[in-house]
Amino acid sequence: MTNDIEIGRSKRARRTYSLDDVALVPARRTRDPRDVNTEWQIDAFKFATPVLGAPMDSVMSPETAITLGKLGGVGVLNLEGLWTRYEDPEPYLDEISLLARDDMSHVTRRMQEIYAEPIKEGLITERLAQIRDAGVVVAGSLTPQRTQEYYKTVVNAGTDLFVIRGTTVSAEHVSQNQEPLDLKKFIYELDVPVIVGGAAGYTPALHLMRTGAAGVLVGFGGGATTTTRRALGIHAAMASAISDVAAARSDYLDESGGRYVHVIADGGLGQSGDMIKAMAMGADAVMIGAPLARAKEAPGRGYHWGPEAHHHEFPRGTRTPMNQVGSLEEVLYGPSHHVDGTSNLMGAVRRAMATTGYSTLKEFQRSEVVLTGRPQY
Amino acid sequence: MTNDIEIGRSKRARRTYSLDDVALVPARRTRDPRDVNTEWQIDAFKFATPVLGAPMDSVMSPETAITLGKLGGVGVLNLEGLWTRYEDPEPYLDEISLLARDDMSHVTRRMQEIYAEPIKEGLITERLAQIRDAGVVVAGSLTPQRTQEYYKTVVNAGTDLFVIRGTTVSAEHVSQNQEPLDLKKFIYELDVPVIVGGAAGYTPALHLMRTGAAGVLVGFGGGATTTTRRALGIHAAMASAISDVAAARSDYLDESGGRYVHVIADGGLGQSGDMIKAMAMGADAVMIGAPLARAKEAPGRGYHWGPEAHHHEFPRGTRTPMNQVGSLEEVLYGPSHHVDGTSNLMGAVRRAMATTGYSTLKEFQRSEVVLTGRPQY
Amino acid sequence: MTNDIEIGRSKRARRTYSLDDVALVPARRTRDPRDVNTEWQIDAFKFATPVLGAPMDSVMSPETAITLGKLGGVGVLNLEGLWTRYEDPEPYLDEISLLARDDMSHVTRRMQEIYAEPIKEGLITERLAQIRDAGVVVAGSLTPQRTQEYYKTVVNAGTDLFVIRGTTVSAEHVSQNQEPLDLKKFIYELDVPVIVGGAAGYTPALHLMRTGAAGVLVGFGGGATTTTRRALGIHAAMASAISDVAAARSDYLDESGGRYVHVIADGGLGQSGDMIKAMAMGADAVMIGAPLARAKEAPGRGYHWGPEAHHHEFPRGTRTPMNQVGSLEEVLYGPSHHVDGTSNLMGAVRRAMATTGYSTLKEFQRSEVVLTGRPQY
Amino acid sequence: MTNDIEIGRSKRARRTYSLDDVALVPARRTRDPRDVNTEWQIDAFKFATPVLGAPMDSVMSPETAITLGKLGGVGVLNLEGLWTRYEDPEPYLDEISLLARDDMSHVTRRMQEIYAEPIKEGLITERLAQIRDAGVVVAGSLTPQRTQEYYKTVVNAGTDLFVIRGTTVSAEHVSQNQEPLDLKKFIYELDVPVIVGGAAGYTPALHLMRTGAAGVLVGFGGGATTTTRRALGIHAAMASAISDVAAARSDYLDESGGRYVHVIADGGLGQSGDMIKAMAMGADAVMIGAPLARAKEAPGRGYHWGPEAHHHEFPRGTRTPMNQVGSLEEVLYGPSHHVDGTSNLMGAVRRAMATTGYSTLKEFQRSEVVLTGRPQY
Repeated sequence: MTNDIEIGRSKRARRTYSLDDVALVPARRTRDPRDVNTEWQIDAFKFATPVLGAPMDSVMSPETAITLGKLGGVGVLNLEGLWTRYEDPEPYLDEISLLARDDMSHVTRRMQEIYAEPIKEGLITERLAQIRDAGVVVAGSLTPQRTQEYYKTVVNAGTDLFVIRGTTVSAEHVSQNQEPLDLKKFIYELDVPVIVGGAAGYTPALHLMRTGAAGVLVGFGGGATTTTRRALGIHAAMASAISDVAAARSDYLDESGGRYVHVIADGGLGQSGDMIKAMAMGADAVMIGAPLARAKEAPGRGYHWGPEAHHHEFPRGTRTPMNQVGSLEEVLYGPSHHVDGTSNLMGAVRRAMATTGYSTLKEFQRSEVVLTGRPQY
Repeated sequence: MTNDIEIGRSKRARRTYSLDDVALVPARRTRDPRDVNTEWQIDAFKFATPVLGAPMDSVMSPETAITLGKLGGVGVLNLEGLWTRYEDPEPYLDEISLLARDDMSHVTRRMQEIYAEPIKEGLITERLAQIRDAGVVVAGSLTPQRTQEYYKTVVNAGTDLFVIRGTTVSAEHVSQNQEPLDLKKFIYELDVPVIVGGAAGYTPALHLMRTGAAGVLVGFGGGATTTTRRALGIHAAMASAISDVAAARSDYLDESGGRYVHVIADGGLGQSGDMIKAMAMGADAVMIGAPLARAKEAPGRGYHWGPEAHHHEFPRGTRTPMNQVGSLEEVLYGPSHHVDGTSNLMGAVRRAMATTGYSTLKEFQRSEVVLTGRPQY
Repeated sequence: MTNDIEIGRSKRARRTYSLDDVALVPARRTRDPRDVNTEWQIDAFKFATPVLGAPMDSVMSPETAITLGKLGGVGVLNLEGLWTRYEDPEPYLDEISLLARDDMSHVTRRMQEIYAEPIKEGLITERLAQIRDAGVVVAGSLTPQRTQEYYKTVVNAGTDLFVIRGTTVSAEHVSQNQEPLDLKKFIYELDVPVIVGGAAGYTPALHLMRTGAAGVLVGFGGGATTTTRRALGIHAAMASAISDVAAARSDYLDESGGRYVHVIADGGLGQSGDMIKAMAMGADAVMIGAPLARAKEAPGRGYHWGPEAHHHEFPRGTRTPMNQVGSLEEVLYGPSHHVDGTSNLMGAVRRAMATTGYSTLKEFQRSEVVLTGRPQY
Repeated sequence: MTNDIEIGRSKRARRTYSLDDVALVPARRTRDPRDVNTEWQIDAFKFATPVLGAPMDSVMSPETAITLGKLGGVGVLNLEGLWTRYEDPEPYLDEISLLARDDMSHVTRRMQEIYAEPIKEGLITERLAQIRDAGVVVAGSLTPQRTQEYYKTVVNAGTDLFVIRGTTVSAEHVSQNQEPLDLKKFIYELDVPVIVGGAAGYTPALHLMRTGAAGVLVGFGGGATTTTRRALGIHAAMASAISDVAAARSDYLDESGGRYVHVIADGGLGQSGDMIKAMAMGADAVMIGAPLARAKEAPGRGYHWGPEAHHHEFPRGTRTPMNQVGSLEEVLYGPSHHVDGTSNLMGAVRRAMATTGYSTLKEFQRSEVVLTGRPQY
């Protein structure tokens, strides 16, 4: 690889790039934003908008999943969150939003307690049924650790898309303590398309594709709310990560004789510009949390957190305050009265595609990017 | 290209540089600042000072355009701004300057309302006549979207320079909804020299030059007031952008058998140092907003905003407070009592040219620059 | 070397990298954290946890050294600190923690006075005996300047590990004023394994290894509390430094026919992510100060400082306030209610090793790293 | 040159480095700081300490020049400052130190007025005599613009070192308005050794050396107090600049058959670490302002400013508050109670030389440096 750099005499490293490192550049042709097509199809499911709501309790409830589905995207419900632990999670959502800001370790401690409540299988069934009854695409997520325990409940309840999401999910998990999930076998036997991640890197992603996954989540899951980088030293610079996994998609397409595995950028897409750049780097769709946590309907009530925030032994995420900017519809489609890329996200996508001259997302993945200079503003 | 970098396995990018990345370096010879010639000529128009006032309502009114003209530059009036929407825009300028600072979305919302007022053709005629009557060069700007609707009014009213300015203007705009502006045909048929942009990149600029434009605006229009980078992911690092377009100017000069198309840096030139570096990168002239918004006569009354700030569906700019530093004349020519490059802009240009040993702007474009190290102060 | 860069016409330099420049990347295989082995053995001493408590008065007292030893690590007592200067240092620790924050030069001045009290050999003997009596591994440190004066006392008192630690320790110290310590002869004659540093760079480290040292401390000793970089211009970017010394370890292993000298990262490891990256760069163990200064038992009482802070003529360190996060046990092993990598350090190490697919520290040193992009959060 | 980078299609640039980009690295040998020799000799003048006090009114008065001379350095009096404009400048120094901080343009305006007072030749004579009478080396500075007018007065008054200092001084100044100073002829005819600058770059410095100068000031004069970079876009990254001029020194030594022209780093040396790195990059001596402005005797009374601060038409410097850290003697030689490299500057130099194993300044210029990674603290 050309960018192989010597860190010290016993270690070399590749240089990677974040989305902030890159920018789009218009070419010689521009388009009318109205001519732009943002449709996305995975398996039998077609979406007007390539947006998956992240399975985070601050973002996706059965209700917001339904709303997002009706708006053309798809909401993924976290099946290990408050909605499957409590018959009525609203008082806990209230409480979390009211915890004082000045003692973060108290917030963490209380969230650990709240999430210590066991998961109820009946509630998994109930929540998924509620979404299905609304007539939108149903999607639920489990961590790899719990997949074996609950997947039958999930499948029986009926889900259209099955999401397996952890900080890092590999095709080959090794354990001397318990029989690990054999992803390949699991996916093969399941009738439902599976989206799995987070992953980063060409090889790990290629192995995930070979398990039969319909989509791969790129990234280690978190943006504004996680401290994985500081606490574990693990980090995927998203521009490089998406491009690498997109290359794996292409090679796997050849290798498999035509299976197209979807690349879904997941983590760190806080503003419309990030979503746009993720697509330009090769993503087919984006899984977003923070932008949807800014919606008035968001269950987080002006706060945002991920599953890492309440890990019982090694929490590495924070409850992060979010500015509420409008309804979920306004967040996605405007009209916008906010100028920082938090409102009318899809208007931004259309405009960026039009300005750079592309009319479909697939073409837009070929968009030229540059490495930008020192920030001037 | 030698600076082609691998971002990930499926994407390569060129590294680009902002004006903050570069600095001028004096050579073996210095000059007396009084010997420096800063004249600029485009088409039949000669200016003592290579400064165009940006068509932003916070900067250019008919009056400030006249003042700037008399001071040796040229003011470009935004023909889609308050001055062509309202018989008397002063109350609205007052109101905008008085909107509370603590709720930015309210500012945006109110500006969207104020700018929803339709454009009046009679006012276009009236405003341009006022400038013409003062005996200075007349310049007005339209966006590409409105050019077909209003250009006849503009031409009939009499303009010396016709500016077509949008975030990104390409030589080939494609639309299935409306017949797009055929720039080449439009410019050919027009008697008035046309300046068009923003553009960045060698190829897009070359195509704009081939439309017959007299000048190309380099940049995507905005500096301090815009959020295009965050909201759309689109960004042109100015040092690279100007140098690229200057290369297109040179190649087009050959290709056309001698047509010299002017390269006008537009966006992000907030202080004299930025203007100087833009010229050193190859700009023939600069279009500036923020520095003129700091003048006491500026219609923004201590605030600065661009047309993006009140876009009806996707605003991506902010009303930005500006420190008032003196009269327009003092801003351009001093005397200065401000030490940060906001006052005596042309004194700074002269001094920088003299210190690096150049006596004309054309020679100064060959000035040596360096990439600077980590900022120490 | 491939990364040899021209700074100016008379000077070239190598580019080096800090731990913040790099990040770990998971590979195709993940592991169960419970299968991870973090044991470390140096000479005859085996530790469950590869953590040395830094010989700083804010971190290591006889009591915390005992606690750390019982928790599976090893505490190194500074034998030139308060515990060997005062029969009862507690009032001075109290006083230091109560010095007003608003006049840093007063803090420095008072610490200089407190540390001007002479070292008592009897207290060296007494403190080491106290640790030994508790049944844990005994480790004490001297600076190179004082080693000749006090080492016999130390050896007679009985220490399992002898640490010689200064800002920079070389194998060849030259002085016209006093016979310098001949490290090679000294170590040869001593029966106790010696750990020596700070050092950085392949060649200096290789020479230290040739003196017979059992371990080399990598780094110039300080992180949060020191100003060596600003005051002396001397700095070792830790990622490069550790990798270089690891390369020396490997070459010395060949050269010596099998002597494995331990590489111990020392300095700037403020959070679990830093410790993890230090190990991934090649460290066998880590010497940490700040993370232990955050323990409730830490003698610093919420403050942290190193020996540089009270140097009599050229102090270059500060008393730094530290957030107290829990007991020493919680800091090392959790449970954690802090999300920033300050609690459950070893849980973080296990998790990072598991996520990147390694089961022993020695294998983990081969972990792939990347150079990360611009920080996005 | 290997580091020639394409900024855009019509411009290439060399990458340069600031002192913050580099750091010293100890080698395999260390020394006793007491064995270090910091002597510096230029022409017939020998100094214990290679420090020139910058000709800035906030730093050098006749009295502080005498004090600095007695302490082993040399103070350069600005012969165009308050001391040659006013019989008694103390009231003006008082006033400047009392100007309110909240209106910087008022400070600039008032300083412009105070410095509008004409220079008196009699005071030049008087001030130099006062320094000479104290038995220390006498050094006075003029700008190139005033050299012809006043140099005879200066020479007649008796100066040991003649400093010609401007933002940028070239060997060839071109003017159509007045006969410029012919440096070569001027220096040839003068009996006194001349130090001239600021300069940066191999070629400009080589030309200055060919004029017969005894020393060249490297840098464009300013650090903390100037805004030249922002206002003019002109900047010399000091690590590269010093190394380049050191290379010119070496080539000129060959070319001239043995003339050694001294390289004096001037500008941006705010802390001991900066001075040390400047010497390691090749400087023979350092001209410092800010560190001396922190002395209790400094005429600036806790403020610091350079001649740029009161330029009548284009001021580009600010009156900057400075923390007072001790007497001039303590600033240079300690004892120090400040940990940030502002006190015991020469103790720091000695220690850095000793730690990296050098015993003379000339050897220290060969010191190895590295490009450091991302700042971790």
